Amino acid sequence: MQELKDRILSEGVVIGDSALKVDSFLNHQLDPAFTLRMGQELATRFADAGITKVLTVEASGIAVAMAVALPLGVPVVFAKKKKAITQDGETYSAEVFSFTRKESVQVTVTRRFLSAQDVILVVDDFLAHGEALKGLVDIVGQAGARLAGAGIVIEKYFQGGGATLRANGVRIESLAVIERMGPEGVRFA
Amino acid sequence: MQELKDRILSEGVVIGDSALKVDSFLNHQLDPAFTLRMGQELATRFADAGITKVLTVEASGIAVAMAVALPLGVPVVFAKKKKAITQDGETYSAEVFSFTRKESVQVTVTRRFLSAQDVILVVDDFLAHGEALKGLVDIVGQAGARLAGAGIVIEKYFQGGGATLRANGVRIESLAVIERMGPEGVRFA
Repeated sequence: MQELKDRILSEGVVIGDSALKVDSFLNHQLDPAFTLRMGQELATRFADAGITKVLTVEASGIAVAMAVALPLGVPVVFAKKKKAITQDGETYSAEVFSFTRKESVQVTVTRRFLSAQDVILVVDDFLAHGEALKGLVDIVGQAGARLAGAGIVIEKYFQGGGATLRANGVRIESLAVIERMGPEGVRFA
Repeated sequence: MQELKDRILSEGVVIGDSALKVDSFLNHQLDPAFTLRMGQELATRFADAGITKVLTVEASGIAVAMAVALPLGVPVVFAKKKKAITQDGETYSAEVFSFTRKESVQVTVTRRFLSAQDVILVVDDFLAHGEALKGLVDIVGQAGARLAGAGIVIEKYFQGGGATLRANGVRIESLAVIERMGPEGVRFA
């Protein structure tokens, strides 16, 4: 998606050799109209997949998931990173290691929000090592639901998560795929 | 907002004497079209306030904040609950005690996303004791920005946060105000 690539180039800041700060429009400040356009683009790519639910994980995935689910006319479910006291005892859960934070978190989804009849699109803001996505895919499996694929805003291809998941048969659509990055900037695939 | 009250009555579950589980449409599963209608209603109430930015806190506030900001045509900033490594050193921050989780968290906003020229609408899914809202209002003050008010989905009036904030001159618009709740159900104000 050219508009996204342009914003990454103009607003993104590369930190070290693998972190990309895009907090001006993706994970701290949001541009709602632009977010809707990104969601529309992902929804278009999965328009014929028969999706019944969009699954993401709090917090940065929520805005994009909303924007994808709106044109598809389906609900969003966001996995929680910490078990809330108002959450049902009956949950699906997966452990997700964050390379950014160097820690594991448990992500959970209340069982009654996913069923074996669901066709699920997993959505997230970033795909890097693929840990979060693998956790969400695992939860889809626990529910016995069908996975339509994953819709990603920015895929950092060089970190390998996308390759592994595609090799396992997961359809991944990313709005911007970064092949390489470093002090010299960002190069798209 | 009648549609919201109807959904609280049909889908909400009262736990103990003060917790309301509305995870089927507000803080775990989301109904995107309904969320947009709630956002539109809050945007309408603050239409003449000259708002330049909507401020919320991750995670459950994000969807509603997006829905409010969209018709207002302004960005959303969501405060983070844990300092991320990609976040600037320069942040505004406030300590927020969660009665639900019985713990304090630091909420932070990168300074460059709020300025003294901003007119800010704070948005959140719940207003109970008002701890999160007080933290966000404090951050608005740190930025030297003007506070237009707070847009809330569900206010649990009996927990007193709204009364305290209104007494301090904060304009609060809540889509549903719960006067009392318990085993007998929910009574709106």
